Amino acid sequence: MQVSLQINARWVITVDADDNVLKNHAVIIQDDIIIDVLPQQDAKKYSPVELIECNDHALAPGFINAHTHAAMSLLKGLADDLPLNEWLNDHIWPAETALADSDFVKDGTELAIAEMIRGGTTCFNDMYFFIDQTATAVSNTGIRACLGIPVIDFPTRWAKDLNEYISKGLAVHDHFRSNELIHFTFAPHAPYTVCDDSLKTIQPIMDELGLAMHIHLHETENEVEQSIAKHGVSPIARLNNLGLLNPDLMAIHMTHLSATDIQLIAEHRVNVIHCPESNLKLASGFCPVNELITSNINIAIGTDGSASNNDIDMLGETKTAALLTKGRTKQADALPAKTALRMATINGAKALRLDKKIGSLEIGKQADMFAINLNSIETQPIYDVISTLIYSANRSQITDVWVAGQRLMQDQQLTTLDEAQLIEKVKHWQRKINPFHHQPNKAV
Amino acid sequence: MQVSLQINARWVITVDADDNVLKNHAVIIQDDIIIDVLPQQDAKKYSPVELIECNDHALAPGFINAHTHAAMSLLKGLADDLPLNEWLNDHIWPAETALADSDFVKDGTELAIAEMIRGGTTCFNDMYFFIDQTATAVSNTGIRACLGIPVIDFPTRWAKDLNEYISKGLAVHDHFRSNELIHFTFAPHAPYTVCDDSLKTIQPIMDELGLAMHIHLHETENEVEQSIAKHGVSPIARLNNLGLLNPDLMAIHMTHLSATDIQLIAEHRVNVIHCPESNLKLASGFCPVNELITSNINIAIGTDGSASNNDIDMLGETKTAALLTKGRTKQADALPAKTALRMATINGAKALRLDKKIGSLEIGKQADMFAINLNSIETQPIYDVISTLIYSANRSQITDVWVAGQRLMQDQQLTTLDEAQLIEKVKHWQRKINPFHHQPNKAV
Repeated sequence: MQVSLQINARWVITVDADDNVLKNHAVIIQDDIIIDVLPQQDAKKYSPVELIECNDHALAPGFINAHTHAAMSLLKGLADDLPLNEWLNDHIWPAETALADSDFVKDGTELAIAEMIRGGTTCFNDMYFFIDQTATAVSNTGIRACLGIPVIDFPTRWAKDLNEYISKGLAVHDHFRSNELIHFTFAPHAPYTVCDDSLKTIQPIMDELGLAMHIHLHETENEVEQSIAKHGVSPIARLNNLGLLNPDLMAIHMTHLSATDIQLIAEHRVNVIHCPESNLKLASGFCPVNELITSNINIAIGTDGSASNNDIDMLGETKTAALLTKGRTKQADALPAKTALRMATINGAKALRLDKKIGSLEIGKQADMFAINLNSIETQPIYDVISTLIYSANRSQITDVWVAGQRLMQDQQLTTLDEAQLIEKVKHWQRKINPFHHQPNKAV
Repeated sequence: MQVSLQINARWVITVDADDNVLKNHAVIIQDDIIIDVLPQQDAKKYSPVELIECNDHALAPGFINAHTHAAMSLLKGLADDLPLNEWLNDHIWPAETALADSDFVKDGTELAIAEMIRGGTTCFNDMYFFIDQTATAVSNTGIRACLGIPVIDFPTRWAKDLNEYISKGLAVHDHFRSNELIHFTFAPHAPYTVCDDSLKTIQPIMDELGLAMHIHLHETENEVEQSIAKHGVSPIARLNNLGLLNPDLMAIHMTHLSATDIQLIAEHRVNVIHCPESNLKLASGFCPVNELITSNINIAIGTDGSASNNDIDMLGETKTAALLTKGRTKQADALPAKTALRMATINGAKALRLDKKIGSLEIGKQADMFAINLNSIETQPIYDVISTLIYSANRSQITDVWVAGQRLMQDQQLTTLDEAQLIEKVKHWQRKINPFHHQPNKAV
C-alpha cells in the first residue's frame, strides 16, 4: 500500500491512555493523518513516498502551548525584574500603545511561530489583537493555532469598542473558518478589564458559534482581592454567577484559589492552563497543580507571552511545572514526568476541544509531532525515555517537526520561514521599541 | 606586541564590580591570562597568533558549578519522581555500592565534564569518591576543578575508614598539588553521616594544608529536626560549636534556616551554595536566597549531581534560581538577572577562594570563558544582553569555551574529548546499571 510518509523511530512516545512508549516502531502517515503505528519489521506492507530514519530519536506528539501572546515576542526582555504594575503600566502597555499595529503583530507572530516550531510546538492557543495578521502568519507557516477573538473594555489600535472587537473578530473567524489548521475561541482579556455587560453580550455569540472561552483568571492575589471588594466574590465565582463555567472554559493562571474556587472548577469541569514560568517571573503566585489534579481537573501548560517568560519553550516550561509542583508540595513524587508530558500535549488538546484530532500519536489522529535526537552527551544514559525528555533533554535537540503531515522543520532548518530574514526584521523592531526599555541606555 | 589570542566580541560581559557590558571590544590573551580588554579599534597594537571573530556573540566568564557529583552522571534519570528516602536507599546507594568503582568514576566524570564544557562551565566543585580518577579526568580534559577529599563514617569502595579516607585523599592532593587547574577541599559528606570526632580529626589537617571545607548542610527539614533531637542544635549551630564556621566553609543547600542560623552564617561569612533544581526535584525545601543576600552572605550556584537534577546546566540552573526567588518572595524585582549571573560566576570563585584568578573577565585573570551566539530566533530581540543570557538563551547556543586560554570547545566541538566514543562507553554502563532503575522493565 502506498503511503505518503513512514518514520522509523527508536522510540515512539505515544501519550495514549496507557502512556505507552514503543521501541523501534514505524509511524505511517497518509497525507495529514497517522494511519498506522507498528513494529518496524511489520511495516513492509507499506510503500512510503518518503521514508525517514530516526534511529537515535524519540518521536512525540507536538507540544500544545495552551496560552500565549505570540506577537509579544518582539517585547522579549523589554522590562525584566520589575514589579508587575511597573512592568505593565510603564513599559509593556506604553510600548504596545505606541507600536503594536498590524505589522507588529505580523512580524512578532512570525518570530514566535519560528521559535515554537524549533521547540516542537505544533499548536498554540493565542490571545492578542490583529488576529487577521495572526491567522495569516499561521496559514503561511503551516503551524496549527487556536486564536482568541479579543475583547477588552478599552480602545486599542485594533478596535475602539465592544462592537468593533466583536465584529472585527467575527469577520476574521468567518474568513478563516474553512482552514483546517485555524481554530477560534472568544478571549475576553480578564475579569478586571471586561465588565459583566461585555461578558453577557458575547455569551450568546459564543454559544451560537460553538466557541470556547479563553480568559486570564486569578492571575494575582490582588485580582482576587479587588474582585471580592468590588463584586463580593472571587473572579471564578463571578463567572459562575454569569453562567460562564463549563468544560468550554480555559482559565489561564489560576493562582490563589480557595477550596470553594477549586470545587467550582471541578464541578463545572473548567480547564486550567498553568503558566509556571510567567507566574514565577512576575511573582504572581503558585497554581495549586497537585490539588487540581487530585480533583480530576484538566490542566494544560502554557508559556504565556515572551514579555513575561522570556521564552516560549514548552519543553522547558513542562520541566519547570514538574519541578515546581514537587518543591511546592514537598512531595518528590508529585507530578511525575509522564503526567507533565500529558499536560503539555493531550491535556492541551482536551482544553482546546481538539483531543479527537491531536495531542497523542495514535491511529486516526493528525500527524502533529516532533523528532528529538537523544544520542547526545546531555541525554545519555537513558533509563526511561519520558524522564529523559522532560528532565534532561533540551529543545535544541529537536530535529524535525510536522504539522498535519507537513514537515515544518527538517534537520533543524525551518521550511516555511526564512530565519535570517526574520531576525533582520526583528532587529528593525528592536530599534523602534528600545526607548520603552526600562534602562534604555544600557549597552546592547 | 605579539600575543597568543585576540577575541573580538559583540559584547563582553565582564562581571566586574560594576557589571559592565562592553560593546565591540577585544579580549587579549597571553598564554593563560587576560592581559587586556579594549575597544576593537584600539587593539591594533597587538599581533595575535590567533584572532577569533565573535561578531554575533557575547563573551562571558565561564560558569563555576559550585556543587556537583560529576561521576553520578551515569545515574542520570535512574530514579526519578521518588521520595528522597526511596530515591537514595532503594536505588542510588545500592547502585553505587554495586558499581561505583574506579572505572565508574573515570567514565562518569568524563561524561559530566563533556556536558559541563558544552554548557559553558569552566570550573566545578566536586564531591565524590575515587578522586584520583576525577583528578586524572580533569587533567586530561583541561577543565578546572576543585576536588573534595571525601569523608564519610561508613566504608565505600574507595575507603574503609576515616584513616583511609584521609590518607588516600591526601595522597591524591599531594600528587596533583602542582597542577594549576586542580584545587582541593575537604568534603565531609554531611553532619548526619560524619560524627563530631571525624570532624575534629580533619580540622587540623584542613588548617595545616589551608584547605576549605565543602559539606552538604541543612538539605532537608528532617535533617534539621534530627540534629536538634540528637545534638540539641541545628546542623549549622553544631558546626559552630565545633569551631568550623568561617569564610572557608561552603555550605551546600541550606534550606530550612532559622533567623539564628542566618545570623550565624552572616557573622562567620560562610558561603552558601544554592542548588535550586535539586532542591525542587527532591522536594527538599527552599533556600532563602533573598534573605541571605540581604544579610550580605556570599551565595553561589551549584547543579548538584545528575542523579538529582537531571542536568548539569549552569545556565538553566541560574535562570531557575532567579525565577524561583521571585516566585517564593512574591517580588518580581528579587534576584535580577545580573545578580543571578554573579552568583553563577564571581560568587562561585569567591566561595572557592579563587576570585583573584577566575570569575570575571578582567585584566590579570585566567582566560576561563565562553562565547555564546545570540543571533538566533530564541534570543532576538536583545534589549539587555545579561537578561537575554539568563532568561532567554540556551546552553546549546554556546559555541566556544576556553579554560586558562586553552580552547576546550571550538565551534561546538569538544577538543579534548571524543563525544561519540564517550556515548558508547556510557551505553555500556547503562546496561550494567539498568537493574537498579526504579522501573527496570520500562521500555528504553
